[in-house]
Amino acid sequence: MYLAKVRVTLKQMVNDPQGLTVLGALKNLGFQSVEDVRVGKYMEIKIDESSRTAAETQVNEMAEKLLSNPVIEEFTYTLEDMHTR
Amino acid sequence: MYLAKVRVTLKQMVNDPQGLTVLGALKNLGFQSVEDVRVGKYMEIKIDESSRTAAETQVNEMAEKLLSNPVIEEFTYTLEDMHTR
Repeated sequence: MYLAKVRVTLKQMVNDPQGLTVLGALKNLGFQSVEDVRVGKYMEIKIDESSRTAAETQVNEMAEKLLSNPVIEEFTYTLEDMHTR
Repeated sequence: MYLAKVRVTLKQMVNDPQGLTVLGALKNLGFQSVEDVRVGKYMEIKIDESSRTAAETQVNEMAEKLLSNPVIEEFTYTLEDMHTR
């Protein structure tokens, strides 16, 4: 059993209105030292595969097909062995 | 200048309908080995502070006040020195 921790972020050249909104809200709350905010998605996915390679293949495919939009987003992930029985 | 990478997740006892929806969609796409999905938020925040301690204080305060809802969510973050000039 593996736990994939997937982060999906907008590509650097893509506008991020949600991030700008959060930036404005933080400034309004008095956080003057904030320079930039980018908002993305985070997902934790439990995968019942016996090998790391199989789990990695699954996560890559999931991220490309459903979890991210490859035109405007990119993803990174870490994979942890869960040692459950 | 520091870059905070903040992950906000629902507490373990809180229902995650968005995660269930993603789980269902993945199963429908043929990913039968997926057992569980939890969806959270991910933010990258640039902070113009000279010391790590000051930046950490800012991030903790931001996360508690705006970025997360402490009743149902928890947050973790990493802080990277950006070495910009």
